[in-house]
Amino acid sequence: MPVPSIDPFHALSISALAHELAAQGRSIIHMEFGQPSTAAPRAALERARHVLATDPMGYWESQPLKERIALHYHETYGVSVQPAQVILTCGASPALVLALMTSFVPGARVAMARPGYVAYRNVVRALHMTPVEIPCGEEERFQLGVRAIAALDPAPEGLILASPANPTGTIVPADEMQAIADLCRARGICVISDEIYHGLSFGARARSILEYDPDALVVNSFSKYFSMAPWRLGWLVVPPAKIEAARARMGNLFLPPAALSQHAALAAFDCRDELDGHMKTYRRNRDLLLRALPEMGLRHIAPPDGAFYIYADIRHLTDDSMAFCRRLLLDTGVTTAPGVDFDPVDGKHFIRFSFAVATDLIEEAIRRMVPWFRQQADHTRDGVPV
Amino acid sequence: MPVPSIDPFHALSISALAHELAAQGRSIIHMEFGQPSTAAPRAALERARHVLATDPMGYWESQPLKERIALHYHETYGVSVQPAQVILTCGASPALVLALMTSFVPGARVAMARPGYVAYRNVVRALHMTPVEIPCGEEERFQLGVRAIAALDPAPEGLILASPANPTGTIVPADEMQAIADLCRARGICVISDEIYHGLSFGARARSILEYDPDALVVNSFSKYFSMAPWRLGWLVVPPAKIEAARARMGNLFLPPAALSQHAALAAFDCRDELDGHMKTYRRNRDLLLRALPEMGLRHIAPPDGAFYIYADIRHLTDDSMAFCRRLLLDTGVTTAPGVDFDPVDGKHFIRFSFAVATDLIEEAIRRMVPWFRQQADHTRDGVPV
Repeated sequence: MPVPSIDPFHALSISALAHELAAQGRSIIHMEFGQPSTAAPRAALERARHVLATDPMGYWESQPLKERIALHYHETYGVSVQPAQVILTCGASPALVLALMTSFVPGARVAMARPGYVAYRNVVRALHMTPVEIPCGEEERFQLGVRAIAALDPAPEGLILASPANPTGTIVPADEMQAIADLCRARGICVISDEIYHGLSFGARARSILEYDPDALVVNSFSKYFSMAPWRLGWLVVPPAKIEAARARMGNLFLPPAALSQHAALAAFDCRDELDGHMKTYRRNRDLLLRALPEMGLRHIAPPDGAFYIYADIRHLTDDSMAFCRRLLLDTGVTTAPGVDFDPVDGKHFIRFSFAVATDLIEEAIRRMVPWFRQQADHTRDGVPV
Repeated sequence: MPVPSIDPFHALSISALAHELAAQGRSIIHMEFGQPSTAAPRAALERARHVLATDPMGYWESQPLKERIALHYHETYGVSVQPAQVILTCGASPALVLALMTSFVPGARVAMARPGYVAYRNVVRALHMTPVEIPCGEEERFQLGVRAIAALDPAPEGLILASPANPTGTIVPADEMQAIADLCRARGICVISDEIYHGLSFGARARSILEYDPDALVVNSFSKYFSMAPWRLGWLVVPPAKIEAARARMGNLFLPPAALSQHAALAAFDCRDELDGHMKTYRRNRDLLLRALPEMGLRHIAPPDGAFYIYADIRHLTDDSMAFCRRLLLDTGVTTAPGVDFDPVDGKHFIRFSFAVATDLIEEAIRRMVPWFRQQADHTRDGVPV
């Protein structure tokens, strides 16, 4: 058995090219990564400053933060989570690793939507488990549904659910979520729900899997709604029966996350006004892009119910999204992520725009992209240059 | 194949009891964990304050920090490491996970010293590999030697080397290190060297495995010598052939570590005077303890060549180190780690003192422990109460 080969994150090389161009003096707009361009909330920064000045700190797991997160589940979803069920981690990434390692063994089959966040299939593969990709196209709103999961034969051991999803922003409706939870319980499928984009919904709020399945595991973090990506702080909620196994792995594989981040994150829970202000920006950005997309000739997109992404079909322009993103960057300075990062099969026909940047940058990106996309259409027919 | 069961870290429950006692007003001296009680160096704190005030930050891998770490290998060990070989991680713990996952697959046999850091065998087991424990007693200076590795049949796929070691502080001498590297190369054993206690040597400096084997992997961090444990920043050095596999795993399983920690750590490299001051404290603490141990009746200890630990044989007093540590804490307020954390076989006969605290606390701990240990000896014969 060889060490599994893991796909690189293609957006990284687009981003690296963008930084090269910026160093040459080019004007670059970064829409390639899923991170807010805003800093941590002011009160979180203030708390960090205070701790830096007064506390030598040590390895630490913040009990108050675990209690606050547990309360958050009661306030937001009306579900009961004990602080001991909350495992603090250095971001959502290691939380997913913990969730998988605590629930499955090498050889286990873990289902997930395609398109989906690149790390799902890569982490599953790195842990010697088998990703079972469920193709979700425009008809399925690019999202998992109960029918597709029912059709899996044999039933997989696990399912990774993401709502709102990356790269699409699609939210699983409440009744579908209930049906998925019921089906997974009936088929003995353990659900890991990545809820990292919760708090970022443009219509109905996203449901937590814990509203339907108390035995599911939930991955979340302070990187998106809380605008604290570089602080590397996430958490995993595990059912009571898995606390011991998850904590033993946390202590041995990771140790607790940075003390300063834990202090700052607790303060961030009191910054709703500021954070909801970011949400207003995302909504404005989304509306601007949705208006501009038809002018760019992009008429097939995933419904961006939440998160800060638009995943658009560009098959009329290319069948090489990586080359397309590169060309878009070189010609306009707008940096995007190629669909191949999210979908190894059909991703060559898609592009992801992240709109978690300031609105004036979105306006400028649109000004640059509209004529460029029109020009591409003029020179292409059915994905082939003419 | 079940999800493997992982031992808990017993010192955690001793520490939890200590915190309970402190909350009741008891005077507690913490010598249970391997973390400096000092804060990050002043210039590192200053840099963090500046970045907090001026930089919104983002996901980030500090190229200057990777270059500085590469230079550190040239300056300290005279070996050439390219910045691209340095993978930044959220502490040494995920660096070890990365090293193991990049080099071995489930089922692989990975050798290590017993006693040794609890996470070695636990992480190996959590990754479905097989720990091969090499018993290292007083005659072997509690450390791996070339003879013991040569005797392994069949040869393991991997070896975890730790010099200075935890819990003993023992350093592998230069000639033995060379012999181990030669033997491992000849037998096809991939070496992972945990060099987290480098910079903390009381005699001859510890050697890096990279002085003898450019294909080895090195785990290190800012938690010990640099006194930045709660900043959760470590690194892994991989040989050029493993850069791609290690980076792909870093990006998918972890993402880069906290941006603020990377900024602060770069500044910490310019704080040698302050950090060497901590080392003077450790040396003073070590000398005080070495003088006091005979008075406490502890005559069999591992030679503390480096790190900030003393691992002492207490088999004349107990065959239950966990209960012993508990009693020591309840009676004197001195918190220590039981040997069972480091050695599942003979650890019941050992105790670990961490002396990375202020000297006045060591003096006070000695004042409390000397009469207590004498009293224990008076009431015990061959480990049995009389």
